[in-house]
Amino acid sequence: MKTKWNYRTPGIPDKFFIRGKVPMTKEEVRAVTLSKLRLKSDDIIVDIGAGTGSISIECALIAEDGLVYAVERKEEGIKLIKENSQIFEIDNIEIIQGIAPEILKEVPKVDKVIVGGSGGKLKEIFQWLELSLVESGRLVMNFITLENMYRAIELLKENGFKDIDVTQLFVSKGRSIANLTMMEGHNPVYIISAVKE
Amino acid sequence: MKTKWNYRTPGIPDKFFIRGKVPMTKEEVRAVTLSKLRLKSDDIIVDIGAGTGSISIECALIAEDGLVYAVERKEEGIKLIKENSQIFEIDNIEIIQGIAPEILKEVPKVDKVIVGGSGGKLKEIFQWLELSLVESGRLVMNFITLENMYRAIELLKENGFKDIDVTQLFVSKGRSIANLTMMEGHNPVYIISAVKE
Amino acid sequence: MKTKWNYRTPGIPDKFFIRGKVPMTKEEVRAVTLSKLRLKSDDIIVDIGAGTGSISIECALIAEDGLVYAVERKEEGIKLIKENSQIFEIDNIEIIQGIAPEILKEVPKVDKVIVGGSGGKLKEIFQWLELSLVESGRLVMNFITLENMYRAIELLKENGFKDIDVTQLFVSKGRSIANLTMMEGHNPVYIISAVKE
Amino acid sequence: MKTKWNYRTPGIPDKFFIRGKVPMTKEEVRAVTLSKLRLKSDDIIVDIGAGTGSISIECALIAEDGLVYAVERKEEGIKLIKENSQIFEIDNIEIIQGIAPEILKEVPKVDKVIVGGSGGKLKEIFQWLELSLVESGRLVMNFITLENMYRAIELLKENGFKDIDVTQLFVSKGRSIANLTMMEGHNPVYIISAVKE
Repeated sequence: MKTKWNYRTPGIPDKFFIRGKVPMTKEEVRAVTLSKLRLKSDDIIVDIGAGTGSISIECALIAEDGLVYAVERKEEGIKLIKENSQIFEIDNIEIIQGIAPEILKEVPKVDKVIVGGSGGKLKEIFQWLELSLVESGRLVMNFITLENMYRAIELLKENGFKDIDVTQLFVSKGRSIANLTMMEGHNPVYIISAVKE
Repeated sequence: MKTKWNYRTPGIPDKFFIRGKVPMTKEEVRAVTLSKLRLKSDDIIVDIGAGTGSISIECALIAEDGLVYAVERKEEGIKLIKENSQIFEIDNIEIIQGIAPEILKEVPKVDKVIVGGSGGKLKEIFQWLELSLVESGRLVMNFITLENMYRAIELLKENGFKDIDVTQLFVSKGRSIANLTMMEGHNPVYIISAVKE
Repeated sequence: MKTKWNYRTPGIPDKFFIRGKVPMTKEEVRAVTLSKLRLKSDDIIVDIGAGTGSISIECALIAEDGLVYAVERKEEGIKLIKENSQIFEIDNIEIIQGIAPEILKEVPKVDKVIVGGSGGKLKEIFQWLELSLVESGRLVMNFITLENMYRAIELLKENGFKDIDVTQLFVSKGRSIANLTMMEGHNPVYIISAVKE
Repeated sequence: MKTKWNYRTPGIPDKFFIRGKVPMTKEEVRAVTLSKLRLKSDDIIVDIGAGTGSISIECALIAEDGLVYAVERKEEGIKLIKENSQIFEIDNIEIIQGIAPEILKEVPKVDKVIVGGSGGKLKEIFQWLELSLVESGRLVMNFITLENMYRAIELLKENGFKDIDVTQLFVSKGRSIANLTMMEGHNPVYIISAVKE
């Protein structure tokens, strides 16, 4: 399998990434998440809860003159982000092991922020965004739990974010069984995006 | 509103396009459709059933050194594609009024094909693909009817396409009502993609 | 059309009800909502936010030796509940015009409660449930807004309800167009049920 | 756990059934499937592809003066139907091991038919329905594969069935994880029902 991605559209197939047992944002959810980020080629991006690094890598490929900070607390994730970065020949990802937002103190102003795994620190992340996300910077968050999704919407309102977009994506995928196409449902994901005032 | 799209990620918000009463592929479905196309900067693309031109325009922005043939049978659609092309300052879309595949006889070999409105001509379109889609070229089709979706899968198998991917996307979007977020369901869309052998 | 319902399964087709412009719980959501209620033939039931009365009527048909209190604040709804009750020849619905829970002070202990339209009074409704829902009584709530859905889950936990079931239902229905079946997506609904300790 | 079902609403919780490794129609899909059947207390019902018997048992509880023929080809399924029938104290299910429609030759005219697992014999099943389903009898079919769903719709039209209803149900269920509610998506199911002319 050719692994370097030669295309200009995001949504790299899941199977191109090494995953281990770390949960990965599926390709369709990733494509929509990236569309809500509205990336430019020189964006500085923070990906909180980077997991396998699949979103960080797509960001790094598109923001080729920019930089992606991939924040992940788990050793296994850090290892996967490194491996996947090598596979896709990425050199503009800076991997940061630790818990956001504490670990982000050294990170300068950023243009775009993705929250894929808040670890319950949503409130603190919003405090950090207040300082560190540029004006008109975009924030995109993915949630699979109802409570974090709700809290994120409340925090967006409390912190004066605008253009709040709440999208729920329910994807099912065909699997071939004996020449039939069986549809398998994925877990629904809430993709919430907004712009800093 | 600034209308020219300055970002490198597809999935331009619906409201940036002029629509009239022509049905439009919604932004999330568009983002996933484009991800399945795997565009390169110099791709030659045919968009069959271009409607408002929203997919053609996103293709033209990404395949900036390539060319998009936007095929649409209705006058109203043709008008919208022209208007939207102007808004996004596109000069690499060739608009073709008529019914595919007949109208495509003059079109040379193409790299990517999108079918957004088959008009019941799916079988003929596959005959044209046999001649006109390059080897390893990608085909992406969107369906909202069960019958056309089924026929497309059968035709893909009969014509030896490989890497057939069947994705159903069920999107719901939040609408603000009295400080509450009401979820509105969109119509589910089947996005079917494959590669020519 | 024969209007009296002669069947023992719930989920009466929407078209059998008079609706006006009042929003109605669709038949599939109604069938699942009733299944979560686990009705007995002699249940005393309160339906808060009865709307067209479709759920009240299904409850009244099943709890034929019981009683349904249909609570609705709007005049138009009250009129529809009356009309629909006549159509289905129901005599065990007591229609109460007003706002729950205030209006429910005279109502005795009840076995089952449905909340279809909380009008922002969720907290007060839970206080009333503390007094008025029997031990092991079931509560089923339908939500289309994220915030009320979230608050309901929190209130269930705070008030010690058990067997909390959170179900999201995303229904799409086929519509015949020129011998094709187009799928139309309904709004997703959260159906939340639980048992009083 | 009390296992006998004392309620008049269908949609018995999944956990009340013994399943083994046999796929089971989930409770919400079962509730909607039964609603489309429109059962009467004395209905004669055939359940083709009965699996664990969950639908047969719900039918038998509702059609308490009727009879359910539960058709299943696999030994494991037959065993589960027997066990589940005992748990729910059912005596109006006749279990038939074999392949429909061949095995149904001895079965008299029936009022309602459920198809949960066609085993590729859809065409033959429709020939049998022509003879064995009463006039105005209802047919409800559940599908998880696109091809069988399509064929069923075509066969309904070819055989002159009326009131064809195509419903797709996409259910997700909350799972408690560390005081959060994670939504898990089930596989989407097509529920297709119709009435014999």
